[in-house]
Amino acid sequence: MQTKTKNNEALPKATAKRLPAYYRLFKKLYNDNVERTNSQQIAENLGVDSATVRRDFSYFGELGRRGYGYETKTLRDFFSELLNDGQETNIALVGVGNLGRALIHYRFHERNKMRITQAYDVAGNPLVGTTTDDNIPIYNISDIKKNLVNDDIETAILSVQSEHAQDATDILVDAGIKGILNFTPQRLSVPDSVVVQSVDLTSELQTLLFFMKNKD
Amino acid sequence: MQTKTKNNEALPKATAKRLPAYYRLFKKLYNDNVERTNSQQIAENLGVDSATVRRDFSYFGELGRRGYGYETKTLRDFFSELLNDGQETNIALVGVGNLGRALIHYRFHERNKMRITQAYDVAGNPLVGTTTDDNIPIYNISDIKKNLVNDDIETAILSVQSEHAQDATDILVDAGIKGILNFTPQRLSVPDSVVVQSVDLTSELQTLLFFMKNKD
Repeated sequence: MQTKTKNNEALPKATAKRLPAYYRLFKKLYNDNVERTNSQQIAENLGVDSATVRRDFSYFGELGRRGYGYETKTLRDFFSELLNDGQETNIALVGVGNLGRALIHYRFHERNKMRITQAYDVAGNPLVGTTTDDNIPIYNISDIKKNLVNDDIETAILSVQSEHAQDATDILVDAGIKGILNFTPQRLSVPDSVVVQSVDLTSELQTLLFFMKNKD
Repeated sequence: MQTKTKNNEALPKATAKRLPAYYRLFKKLYNDNVERTNSQQIAENLGVDSATVRRDFSYFGELGRRGYGYETKTLRDFFSELLNDGQETNIALVGVGNLGRALIHYRFHERNKMRITQAYDVAGNPLVGTTTDDNIPIYNISDIKKNLVNDDIETAILSVQSEHAQDATDILVDAGIKGILNFTPQRLSVPDSVVVQSVDLTSELQTLLFFMKNKD
């Protein structure tokens, strides 16, 4: 199901990527007892320009009124629904190395209803068969299909070494995973029914260096 | 200094963010002895459409020839220069918690000339005064200004807890840091002379869930 925009256009990817930031801002403003705000203030908070905010919001029809602005409670509820934050999401993590262990401890749940509930690695990893101090079991990857079906998990975080990225992905897809947050620098081959969102830390650092070098 | 584009336009941020992926692809193709490629193949590799590739490349003038395509060696060298990958970049990491420790071990250097050479935390962290098994010293944050000036470091990775993000940023700016890769979910206030690139892991996961929910 595609998100319904005002004119049934597909939502641009750049807009979709800003939705978590909008949601976060409206939650904060609401908690700070700010009742309404406007596109200039939203833009300043997010570090984008106000035309971008107005264009993003225009995809969803009338979120505010001219000369009045946006009610923070209404917008918080709107983005919560849009991002499905009313519902708990359980996540499996695959690859319990340095980065995987850090991600298991990362407080995804602090601000949202997303939680890593299981982790996997190959039999050779001594952590397999143990449980983290946050009570996350670390299973053998060979058990993943059985476990995911039982626990109705469709989302995975992939933090294996690059050279195992595609093999692990194939296992995840076979086990019914529909979305992968990919921390490896590999581009993953998946069927059309599976979504991949990649976080390439090396690219992020290169992009920073590029912007530093080319600062006017 | 702004990157010179063909018509002296500013390079769009979305294009700038794809540069590391282009560079990575041309390095790989060259190493695989592929002599030339075309925008369709580049697009498939990056998961974007070929019009985007042609538009991105058009900002840099004549990188290829119609009907011939792009020479991988020429393009590899072009992006290496653009991304300043001929030069070693030393980086300081601030905040040696779970994520910070994982980032210290992350192989930024494997594919590029970027390297974390120092880490910092507050005196209360028992790791301060020790050295990691990769030989990265972990210093007291109070020594940062002196150390950074001595070592000519202008780039920092920020992986402290959210509530200390702005204080740590102020210390970094005061110590002469010109670019921050921000792993905290906080929006940081910095002077115009400093660049911030943010990696918000919670937002990445929310974006994945949004795309999964709205898959057509």
